[in-house]
Amino acid sequence: MDIALLGGTGDIGEGLALRWAYDTDHSVVIGSREADRAEAKAEEYETELDSRGVDVTVEGAANSEAAARADVVVLAVPAYHLSDTIEAVADDVDSDTVLVSPAVGMKRDEDGFHYNEPGVGSVTELAAGAAPDDVPVVGAFHNLPAARLANLDADLGIDTVVVGDDEDAVDIVTELAEGIEGLRAVDGGPLANAAEIEAITPLLINVAKHNDGMHDLGVRFD
Amino acid sequence: MDIALLGGTGDIGEGLALRWAYDTDHSVVIGSREADRAEAKAEEYETELDSRGVDVTVEGAANSEAAARADVVVLAVPAYHLSDTIEAVADDVDSDTVLVSPAVGMKRDEDGFHYNEPGVGSVTELAAGAAPDDVPVVGAFHNLPAARLANLDADLGIDTVVVGDDEDAVDIVTELAEGIEGLRAVDGGPLANAAEIEAITPLLINVAKHNDGMHDLGVRFD
Repeated sequence: MDIALLGGTGDIGEGLALRWAYDTDHSVVIGSREADRAEAKAEEYETELDSRGVDVTVEGAANSEAAARADVVVLAVPAYHLSDTIEAVADDVDSDTVLVSPAVGMKRDEDGFHYNEPGVGSVTELAAGAAPDDVPVVGAFHNLPAARLANLDADLGIDTVVVGDDEDAVDIVTELAEGIEGLRAVDGGPLANAAEIEAITPLLINVAKHNDGMHDLGVRFD
Repeated sequence: MDIALLGGTGDIGEGLALRWAYDTDHSVVIGSREADRAEAKAEEYETELDSRGVDVTVEGAANSEAAARADVVVLAVPAYHLSDTIEAVADDVDSDTVLVSPAVGMKRDEDGFHYNEPGVGSVTELAAGAAPDDVPVVGAFHNLPAARLANLDADLGIDTVVVGDDEDAVDIVTELAEGIEGLRAVDGGPLANAAEIEAITPLLINVAKHNDGMHDLGVRFD
């Protein structure tokens, strides 16, 4: 499968790119607003993979080009860039493309991090609203510990909850998620259930702050 | 330590009562709006514990009496009974009592269960607002799987996030939580961080609904 990681130069994008390239046979292309930046990062990832004896090509391209050639487009951008990023690739995706939204909106005050719920209910639903009507959107990868994900020596042993209204699209993303060693995909139901998943991310940051020895946390349902 | 479980006849109250009586030396009193009902349940719990060779006394009393004799009062009642229950025991608690709020507000629609956030931010903060000013309130036990908790043969291996603004009160509740075998207490910071913890409960219900073999779930931060 061809996966485009838009915002694949950022921390969560880096981790997903490295894990998919390392653990699976999927082809990964890094997208960025600037093609140069995407290419430089792709080369960096290739070097990292090569140092572990994995000889794969990771390509880099401008977001639009990366999206055009992909079966699955992961919107690994901050929540405030989500709508812009989707608009920029709207002509490059169609009903055979799956858009994946891992973004979470957070705000910080003196007490800690908090979920910043958009008016439509969740950032994932915001993505669905911004996407062309015939392009399925799936929510996944909201609560992954970025540094641990990008460290191929680190074990995961965590879950990601997948939500979506298009069953085939959910199945594709579930399979992609399960391809990453130590990551379990669990079905969260329809897109409308995304808010409670997204809200875990600020909680993980608060827990890491207040507990010695707990950092870069993921979540597991047991 | 003397623990009162108001609403101790309900499912989460039953589990906490049985676990504390089985795993620790704390004294447990079951509270209910009707003393008779509390006494009957307490006797039921004693019988269950006795069948496992644990000879302890579990008392039952009206909420007010139960609260009056306790160091820690757990408000194991539904969110919509929380304010009433606190008002009913307001004269029976003082600055040496710790109130513990495990309640979560949820709503259900055709998509699944959702967190029903009160105007003050969380149900735990609602409890703090209803409590007498000098009585510390701690949030804990929000995401426990009730049936598994009440089944002393079941392993837990899960976390509970503890939040509060009074450090001593948080320490007391943390110690109580850790007394239950297989339950780890993690510090979530101040009360203002409670909403993201409470929101996990509807998510656990949605995940259980959509995944074969996953039911009566708890959460673990790893």
